[in-house]
Amino acid sequence: MAGTDSSQPLSLAPSPAIILVEPQLGENIGAAARAMANFGLADMRLVRPRDGWPNEKAVAAASRADHVLERVKVFGSLEAAIADLTLVYATTARSRDMQKEVLGPEEASANMASHIAAQKSVGLLFGRERWGLLNDEVALADAIVTLPVEPAFASLNIAQAVLLMSYEWRRTREEGRALPFTDGLDEAAPREQLVGLFEHLEGVLDHTGFFTTPDKRPSMVNNLRTALTRGRFTAQEIRTLRGVISSIDRRHERPNPNRQKPADGADGKD
Amino acid sequence: MAGTDSSQPLSLAPSPAIILVEPQLGENIGAAARAMANFGLADMRLVRPRDGWPNEKAVAAASRADHVLERVKVFGSLEAAIADLTLVYATTARSRDMQKEVLGPEEASANMASHIAAQKSVGLLFGRERWGLLNDEVALADAIVTLPVEPAFASLNIAQAVLLMSYEWRRTREEGRALPFTDGLDEAAPREQLVGLFEHLEGVLDHTGFFTTPDKRPSMVNNLRTALTRGRFTAQEIRTLRGVISSIDRRHERPNPNRQKPADGADGKD
Repeated sequence: MAGTDSSQPLSLAPSPAIILVEPQLGENIGAAARAMANFGLADMRLVRPRDGWPNEKAVAAASRADHVLERVKVFGSLEAAIADLTLVYATTARSRDMQKEVLGPEEASANMASHIAAQKSVGLLFGRERWGLLNDEVALADAIVTLPVEPAFASLNIAQAVLLMSYEWRRTREEGRALPFTDGLDEAAPREQLVGLFEHLEGVLDHTGFFTTPDKRPSMVNNLRTALTRGRFTAQEIRTLRGVISSIDRRHERPNPNRQKPADGADGKD
Repeated sequence: MAGTDSSQPLSLAPSPAIILVEPQLGENIGAAARAMANFGLADMRLVRPRDGWPNEKAVAAASRADHVLERVKVFGSLEAAIADLTLVYATTARSRDMQKEVLGPEEASANMASHIAAQKSVGLLFGRERWGLLNDEVALADAIVTLPVEPAFASLNIAQAVLLMSYEWRRTREEGRALPFTDGLDEAAPREQLVGLFEHLEGVLDHTGFFTTPDKRPSMVNNLRTALTRGRFTAQEIRTLRGVISSIDRRHERPNPNRQKPADGADGKD
């Protein structure tokens, strides 16, 4: 989905560090950086990336998340990568036989948010593509975070896991639920204009024989009004619809050479 | 994150159709299929995929989301792809100058869930990698869905957009917040055992001169007990810790040739 608005300032508010332990594919590092950028995270840390750093494939996959890539820090050990943090969560899709609390993404994000609100630093660990985090790496974390996936198909790509945690993180912040745009609907026209449309239409139909018998008219009118109310038309749309009615109506006043029969059922009878 | 449990049955409950309009890269189709599988969706529809179907790159990227790939339906037009649906949402990261409601992912998922609960079929449209959905395609939808991304970096990969909507969809379902595992912590030991640990430790310390003066003892004991309570030790952990205390303590009873001085501060004094 295109839509980046480069005129907008980047928000680099404090956010969790995303720590990739021995990532193997540059594509995944880049996709993770892009996912972080989508949701306002910027502190990416790499522990012994297999193909070294910088990595061209990562740059290509990050699709211009330069402000994240430029800030990437590389470490020789996980201990060094988390040295400055006071809250560390380990993401894993596998149950570990460990005395560690297991949190879902929302609970974990809420905890990280209150921690960061208290001016402390937090980090999220993500393991290798092939076999995730080792138990001695998970042992360094305060708790385990796992995602509510389909147990029969739980294997998440590392960049997807980073995306979902980044998304949840952003949702814990004030602006986290704000959509990038919300133009949406203009207001529905005042009922007076809607009733004007009804009466215009019904007046025309009184002359076209639409209301087969007078006793049928009230229920047919109600059905029409019910259908036309549901659209919550704007003032502009009502003007347009009245124009449509008039133009069809006028055809019958001054016959027109290239006039056509309405398509079957186009008279709306039921 | 590895962790798929193949022994688990796949849940193929009714779910929204994921409709990719003119997808360009097989890798993205496959990654989208994998994301659907992660969160229990299975109805993928492709409108004029650029490289045709089946697509080897899609299979490779789907990492065994076969039950989704096998069910893929290919259509020659968007109209045909949504013919059987009664609720259709268009995902887009760009504001459109259209009289359409704009929904966030949670609201959209809740609407889709109640629609599906009423035995009706719903679908989510996703546009081309390069330029998303065309306005005449968005016009066929009941509303627009957009994600709460960073406005300055809103560009989401199509597979990432499918992942986030699939994740939100699953969260609307009863089991949607259930984690694949929750082993977590064993229960903390009854306080009796914790107090046993305290008294054991304090009894030992009474003989090591840890409590420098009797008047300091109560506050030092409180500090120790406070620190040791925070860990919420299990019965097993308490047995282990008492073993640790005894083994250190015994060193002093029967001196041991390769005994070492405790490291600085290891005596816990402050």
